[in-house]
Amino acid sequence: MPYLANRNSIIEQLRAHPERAARLWVEAGHEGASAGAIEEARKAGVSVRVVSGEQFRRRFREVRSHICLETEEFTYADPDALLGEVHSLGKPFFAAFDGVYDPQNLGNVIRTAACFGLDALFIPRDKACSVTGTVINVARGGIEHIRISRVANLARHIEELKKRNVFCFGLDERADMDLYKADLTVPLCLVFGGEEGLKRLTRERCDLLLKIPTTAAFSSLNVASAFAASAYEAARQRRRI
Amino acid sequence: MPYLANRNSIIEQLRAHPERAARLWVEAGHEGASAGAIEEARKAGVSVRVVSGEQFRRRFREVRSHICLETEEFTYADPDALLGEVHSLGKPFFAAFDGVYDPQNLGNVIRTAACFGLDALFIPRDKACSVTGTVINVARGGIEHIRISRVANLARHIEELKKRNVFCFGLDERADMDLYKADLTVPLCLVFGGEEGLKRLTRERCDLLLKIPTTAAFSSLNVASAFAASAYEAARQRRRI
Repeated sequence: MPYLANRNSIIEQLRAHPERAARLWVEAGHEGASAGAIEEARKAGVSVRVVSGEQFRRRFREVRSHICLETEEFTYADPDALLGEVHSLGKPFFAAFDGVYDPQNLGNVIRTAACFGLDALFIPRDKACSVTGTVINVARGGIEHIRISRVANLARHIEELKKRNVFCFGLDERADMDLYKADLTVPLCLVFGGEEGLKRLTRERCDLLLKIPTTAAFSSLNVASAFAASAYEAARQRRRI
Repeated sequence: MPYLANRNSIIEQLRAHPERAARLWVEAGHEGASAGAIEEARKAGVSVRVVSGEQFRRRFREVRSHICLETEEFTYADPDALLGEVHSLGKPFFAAFDGVYDPQNLGNVIRTAACFGLDALFIPRDKACSVTGTVINVARGGIEHIRISRVANLARHIEELKKRNVFCFGLDERADMDLYKADLTVPLCLVFGGEEGLKRLTRERCDLLLKIPTTAAFSSLNVASAFAASAYEAARQRRRI
C-alpha cells in the first residue's frame, strides 16, 4: 500500500481526498507535533493508530518522519476523457514529459504544475518514472491539485491534442526562438524531454520549438527547473489577458 | 577528498579547472563509455587510473557510475572581494539563499544560476547545506560557471549589498507584488528562503518583497523551482534592455 510521510502532503490529502486515505499512523510520543494531521483525519473520519516507535519502524522501514498516511493507489486520469474535455476547458494548459526518470524531478514538476494551475500532465506509460510514493512526497501536497494521465505513445498523444486545436510547443535548448516570444495564452501543451532532452520523434510532432534564454557557455537546465521557468512564463502571459 | 561521479560534471571540471583535478578513476571494462572524459583528462595532464570493479567499489562506496574524478576541496569566493567588485560589474545579478538544507535543491540552484549567468550566489556559513560532492554532482558541471560565497550573517550581507546600490528583492509567497511587475534590470540580489521560506530578519532587510503568481489553492513552490522562475524573469527583462 502506498503511503505519505510528509506532514503537509498528509494534510493536503486528507482535505482534498479523504476517501483515498486508509489509515493514519502516528508514532507514540509524537502526537503533539502531528496534532494538525490527526485533527484532519478525525474530521475526515479516517482512523488514527498511535503505535510504539518499534512498531512504527517495523511497518515503515524507510520513513524518517513519525507519521504516515496509508493511501489507496494513485489514480491516473483517463487520457481519452481529458481529450474529450479539451473544448470545454477554454484555454487549457497542459504539459507533457517525454521520459522523466528521476522521482525528485517528477515530484517537483507536479508541485510546480499545481502552483501554476495546469489542467493536466501527460507522462508515458513506459520508460519513465510513474507516480510513486516518493514522487507524491516530493510534490508536498501538489498531487491533490493536478490530474496526471499516462499515455501509451506520447508522440501520438501530441497529434491528438493538435487535432483538438491545442498548440504543442516543445522546449529544446537548440531551438532558435526564445520562450517569451511565443504566445502562450493559446490552448497549450508544453512538451519537455526527460533528463536527456526531447526525443526526436516527439520533437518532430511539436508545432514550435522554444528555448529558455540561457548563457551560451552553460545551457543545461534541469527538467524541473526548465518546467518552472516555462510554466511561470505562461502564467505571466495569461494573467495579462 | 571530494570527487565527481557524473560524466558531464567531470568533463566540465576538466575543461574549466584542470588544476583542481587530482586523478581520474575508471572501472575496467568501462573505458569505452568514459572515452570523452579520459581524453579530456589526458589533454589536461591529469593522470588516469583504470582499476578493477572490486577496487573501484572499495574506493568509492557510494558511487553508482563507473568513473570518478578526485578533486581538490571546493573553493568559495571571498564575500568581501565580491563586494569590492560590485561597482565594476555594472548591473550585477546575485542571489542569496537563507538556509537551503537539501543538497538536491542547492545543486539545482547552482545549475540554474550557471545557466542564467548570475555573477555569484551567497549562502550562509552555518545552518545550511554547503557545497558538498552531492551538490557538485547535482549541478552537472554548473559549479564551474558560478562563484559561490559563504557569509557569516546573511541579513548583514544584504545591508552591505544595499550600501553598494544593489537592490535586494525577497521572494515571499505572502508578498503583494507580482515578480514581473518589478524592474529586475537594476543591480540586483534576489533573496530566497530555504525549504521553509524567508526568515523574518532576512525578509525585513529586503528593499521589496515579490511573489511568483501562483493559484490561491496551492502556492508552495520548491525553492529551486522558485529560483528558476525568478532567474528566468530577470534574464528575460535583461535581454530586452
